[in-house]
Amino acid sequence: MKAIVKERPGAGACYTDVDRPIPSSHQVLVRVRAASFCGTDLHIYKWTPWAESRIHPPMVFGHEFAGDVVDVGAQVERIRVGDHIAAESHLPCFECYQCRTGAMHICQNLQILGVDRPGCFAEYVAIPEICAVHTDPALPWEIATLQEPFGNSVYAVTEAAVMGKRVAIFGDGPTGIFATAVARAFGATQIFCVGLQPYRLALLRHYAPDRIFDAAQDAPVEQILQATRGLGVDVVLEMSGAEAAIHQGFRVVRKGGTFVAFGLPAAPIPINFADELIFKGIQIKAINGRQMFATWEQVQNLLLSGRVDLRPVITHTFPMAAIDTAMQLLTGQEAKAGKIVLTPGAAG
Amino acid sequence: MKAIVKERPGAGACYTDVDRPIPSSHQVLVRVRAASFCGTDLHIYKWTPWAESRIHPPMVFGHEFAGDVVDVGAQVERIRVGDHIAAESHLPCFECYQCRTGAMHICQNLQILGVDRPGCFAEYVAIPEICAVHTDPALPWEIATLQEPFGNSVYAVTEAAVMGKRVAIFGDGPTGIFATAVARAFGATQIFCVGLQPYRLALLRHYAPDRIFDAAQDAPVEQILQATRGLGVDVVLEMSGAEAAIHQGFRVVRKGGTFVAFGLPAAPIPINFADELIFKGIQIKAINGRQMFATWEQVQNLLLSGRVDLRPVITHTFPMAAIDTAMQLLTGQEAKAGKIVLTPGAAG
Amino acid sequence: MKAIVKERPGAGACYTDVDRPIPSSHQVLVRVRAASFCGTDLHIYKWTPWAESRIHPPMVFGHEFAGDVVDVGAQVERIRVGDHIAAESHLPCFECYQCRTGAMHICQNLQILGVDRPGCFAEYVAIPEICAVHTDPALPWEIATLQEPFGNSVYAVTEAAVMGKRVAIFGDGPTGIFATAVARAFGATQIFCVGLQPYRLALLRHYAPDRIFDAAQDAPVEQILQATRGLGVDVVLEMSGAEAAIHQGFRVVRKGGTFVAFGLPAAPIPINFADELIFKGIQIKAINGRQMFATWEQVQNLLLSGRVDLRPVITHTFPMAAIDTAMQLLTGQEAKAGKIVLTPGAAG
Amino acid sequence: MKAIVKERPGAGACYTDVDRPIPSSHQVLVRVRAASFCGTDLHIYKWTPWAESRIHPPMVFGHEFAGDVVDVGAQVERIRVGDHIAAESHLPCFECYQCRTGAMHICQNLQILGVDRPGCFAEYVAIPEICAVHTDPALPWEIATLQEPFGNSVYAVTEAAVMGKRVAIFGDGPTGIFATAVARAFGATQIFCVGLQPYRLALLRHYAPDRIFDAAQDAPVEQILQATRGLGVDVVLEMSGAEAAIHQGFRVVRKGGTFVAFGLPAAPIPINFADELIFKGIQIKAINGRQMFATWEQVQNLLLSGRVDLRPVITHTFPMAAIDTAMQLLTGQEAKAGKIVLTPGAAG
Repeated sequence: MKAIVKERPGAGACYTDVDRPIPSSHQVLVRVRAASFCGTDLHIYKWTPWAESRIHPPMVFGHEFAGDVVDVGAQVERIRVGDHIAAESHLPCFECYQCRTGAMHICQNLQILGVDRPGCFAEYVAIPEICAVHTDPALPWEIATLQEPFGNSVYAVTEAAVMGKRVAIFGDGPTGIFATAVARAFGATQIFCVGLQPYRLALLRHYAPDRIFDAAQDAPVEQILQATRGLGVDVVLEMSGAEAAIHQGFRVVRKGGTFVAFGLPAAPIPINFADELIFKGIQIKAINGRQMFATWEQVQNLLLSGRVDLRPVITHTFPMAAIDTAMQLLTGQEAKAGKIVLTPGAAG
Repeated sequence: MKAIVKERPGAGACYTDVDRPIPSSHQVLVRVRAASFCGTDLHIYKWTPWAESRIHPPMVFGHEFAGDVVDVGAQVERIRVGDHIAAESHLPCFECYQCRTGAMHICQNLQILGVDRPGCFAEYVAIPEICAVHTDPALPWEIATLQEPFGNSVYAVTEAAVMGKRVAIFGDGPTGIFATAVARAFGATQIFCVGLQPYRLALLRHYAPDRIFDAAQDAPVEQILQATRGLGVDVVLEMSGAEAAIHQGFRVVRKGGTFVAFGLPAAPIPINFADELIFKGIQIKAINGRQMFATWEQVQNLLLSGRVDLRPVITHTFPMAAIDTAMQLLTGQEAKAGKIVLTPGAAG
Repeated sequence: MKAIVKERPGAGACYTDVDRPIPSSHQVLVRVRAASFCGTDLHIYKWTPWAESRIHPPMVFGHEFAGDVVDVGAQVERIRVGDHIAAESHLPCFECYQCRTGAMHICQNLQILGVDRPGCFAEYVAIPEICAVHTDPALPWEIATLQEPFGNSVYAVTEAAVMGKRVAIFGDGPTGIFATAVARAFGATQIFCVGLQPYRLALLRHYAPDRIFDAAQDAPVEQILQATRGLGVDVVLEMSGAEAAIHQGFRVVRKGGTFVAFGLPAAPIPINFADELIFKGIQIKAINGRQMFATWEQVQNLLLSGRVDLRPVITHTFPMAAIDTAMQLLTGQEAKAGKIVLTPGAAG
Repeated sequence: MKAIVKERPGAGACYTDVDRPIPSSHQVLVRVRAASFCGTDLHIYKWTPWAESRIHPPMVFGHEFAGDVVDVGAQVERIRVGDHIAAESHLPCFECYQCRTGAMHICQNLQILGVDRPGCFAEYVAIPEICAVHTDPALPWEIATLQEPFGNSVYAVTEAAVMGKRVAIFGDGPTGIFATAVARAFGATQIFCVGLQPYRLALLRHYAPDRIFDAAQDAPVEQILQATRGLGVDVVLEMSGAEAAIHQGFRVVRKGGTFVAFGLPAAPIPINFADELIFKGIQIKAINGRQMFATWEQVQNLLLSGRVDLRPVITHTFPMAAIDTAMQLLTGQEAKAGKIVLTPGAAG
């Protein structure tokens, strides 16, 4: 079959032939109908230090996708050939404390699809039955593939209980945009977004935050404090991983508020525990992945009910063969795409 | 001044002259600009057994209102003459365990405005400073007076954390209608409403629940279970106090779900603890009043941001002098009003 | 093999020969080393209406046990021959909403060991791998078998967060006694126990509650209110299922307190929603089973650390052959036993 | 009256004459019977950069004390002359969002007794009525004064819900020792303490943690991970403020665990958000002060019930006149005291 492969250490990737996977007894084989691009994939494509330390080429990468099941292993019971599924990319061990206490998304022996195991930028992918999530056929494939990253934001916003609250969202990447959509849907009454990239700040407008700040030009801390009469916001959703944003987040979160840490900084960040955390009496919730599978239920409720429409975030769709063209949108000085959807097959 | 007074035991009330109250050192005197009718007031007007056991005529009643401050007691510090305020109707003692641990809305020595102390269906009312809540002048008086009952529903829905959840709401009185509006605003993705009164079921439509059932004709339990594939709903908001509704609520709440008890039944209800509660592993949250004053913050956030528009619920406005005319709308076989707003003064 | 069998509808049970079970692919076969008696078993033995409606003889019953694994099915991965295990008696389906969202103990398709499937009052029992919980060999068999019922109480007390709180515990059966031990271990600072059976009230003393009331002679409500200066208790643990106890519980729980409903009443109980629940602003947590498997971790932490010693509750040990003798202790007017442990084999 | 006064910028303090305070209308005047020393007082005594930036000499300092009321302001209602009280040292404004929503301990305009207002190292001190907490006369003065710092630890441990859990406590100062006592009382089943000062590590033994590590000699991270089979602990209580301890805490907290931040580092600490927080999916609860007044209720429940005995932590008692002698115990290379209690009056 055809797949996008990191063939050897170094930047780039090939669209080439690999063996079609054979599902083991607990796996299902899925024909990929749509996949989507994540920041992690960009690390792999560009071969950043993180990728170098973690990825073992040759490797098919990609972990966001949806498709229909074409084969199932001998022990598979819940999934049938023909089912529409999307995939949870966190592959749990089932045996550790976390897996046995309702927290398998942070399994101690966690493996990630497309990072630790062959991924989904391919015509077919084999995944453990547990990670196959039934998807309503009413959901178009390009929306179904977004459930995984959208789930990150749904989990983050749910943990912050934004109902009737004031919220600041840092980060204009897809999870920041998704978080804005979810915060709006979940009843945040004042939403302040802070980002840096004009292309993506424009995408944010689709979800109608109350204010959008360009961190390069505006003074978001001062303006958020002013707009909240000095109180600050009840909730900060830090989806950027940027050092400046993290400090700004601690400045605008009100005393006793909640700071959700989702964005991954590239390096350690000096934190003033006394002034940024303790005297403020805040709580930090660090979010990784999505709850398996409570978040997925919410995701499907939101999408099927029409409460959130993800279509505005899909700015481009490419065949997998055009991976290099797609990457040019993301590797310039500024990202010129929202979510990029990849479909199997050769360029049109 | 003029006021609506329950002059003696028995049905009815008079619009008559009483002395204008003089604020004590911790009180503020408010000129009532708008008041609104609550089920409690109807009990007092009709002189039900509850009213007979609790109310000591002669007595000005009414507890929902908004107005501007015209005088303040010597020890008042936070409120100034001219401020626009609405009133928390729960008057706390400040000394009991609950008052000292952040739960003064369920004070052990709780007094209720218009029940235990002279109320607001009058040109002026004196209330403790603590219960005067600043209200943005941008809020019209007839909306400002609804903050108190709306707060009941905001508190109830907040406790149920409806974000991305399935919700059934029993009761088509104002708090049921408000709860529908709040559940929608806070991201419930499927909302089923169950009521009995055609006039009020029609009002519910303004808040766009997914389904509205007329309990007299439909089979809400079967239809809710069918619509949720047998699972049931994550959350039941029981705002009616009707025995049938309570049992229906226990049937449709899913295992592990949340049942919010707000409606006040007139008599004990036989509960099957094993089947209705324990084998289902549910939690019941009994809600009285509003959190002082976290709920009020949410209320103002919702109303000022425009996330919820309460105008459709106000079906009638009368001068206080027309109290008997107003009551005719509520005392027939079926309520023919949503929320009734009263304004001081003689009939047009 | 030998087993205790309900051979036909009606009171009593036989100690007789049945086929040794053969584990299916996901099951493990366990040699029972110790089992213990639960109220459910008494219903089956006495053939109460509940038993008649639920049990299909002939049937081996019993669901509390510990033992060592002697065989495993082909797909079993986590458990090995020779492992010491105790059993979770709730057999989940893995596919329903609850199973997929961390609440498999209240699975929609829940089956109970020894109720819906052949039980453990036998030399051998086959159980699903998921329900086999590794048990430290340092734990004696007769303690290991108590983990399941002790887990009920650990879950109930944990949900009530009794740390530094005042607690009233209703019910002097084993789960009431266990709850007293756990409440003590988890830092309840005032513990009031209410029971009816002198034999079991004496057992309670091993866990040093502050006060023990005999509901037949004392006035527990008045005395608890007096001892708490009229406030009432922060937490009620209702472990009895008795109507009088439930109403007493609602009277002594403070406004804003937590009422844990665990005991199963035999018939519906008339509840005054207004006075018992809503005006008090309480929450009710209905508890069934144990969290799978967070509670089991706590159970093992408590037992292995020596924080709780369950030995005083084991008042009798019988060979399974002596089932009728054992039952005489429980079927008189008053229970004359704490926990009865059964060991496989003929009477000494 | 006599008081300990920081007369001018620079190290040291004087025991000298100052005016006795006169209570304002909302204040009570208390005769100090016992006071106690906190790390904050040491900063003031030594005149560290923090003290220099915050304290305005001349100033009576000290904020932990108990005493009896000798006078009350005109508007005081809850407190009477003769009452035994201890003091909440956080003086709230009553008007900010936090004060009005049950979080006055993190008031936006918070003032601290003995820091922003004249303190309690004196014969008499005036405090706002709200901050006077009734104390059972059964509690000796030297225990009563410890309620405030003990409350820090009670709040921290309560937030971590340690019931049946594994806990690591960093810091051997009084709040670390108190936290150990509370974690034990609240049912932590494995407690690992990490400290640096032999004198204080010895004090820890009174509260029977499972293991005590001397960070200077032992390898606490490796040993805690080994003792928990690689899992780590459910809860970290960081009571030291030391950079090394914070990083060790992040290493030993299990995925999904809770990290309580209480100790105040002197400088920013570089945090690896990805590895220390996000991939672990932990939550951080930053704790300042005590809940007003839910924590105080727990404190009194613990002390009056005898569940926790604070006497072993009081290693020295001095008259206030001997302040310099007392300080020598704390200003050497290693602290040679637990909690130091000060009593009014001249040296013996």
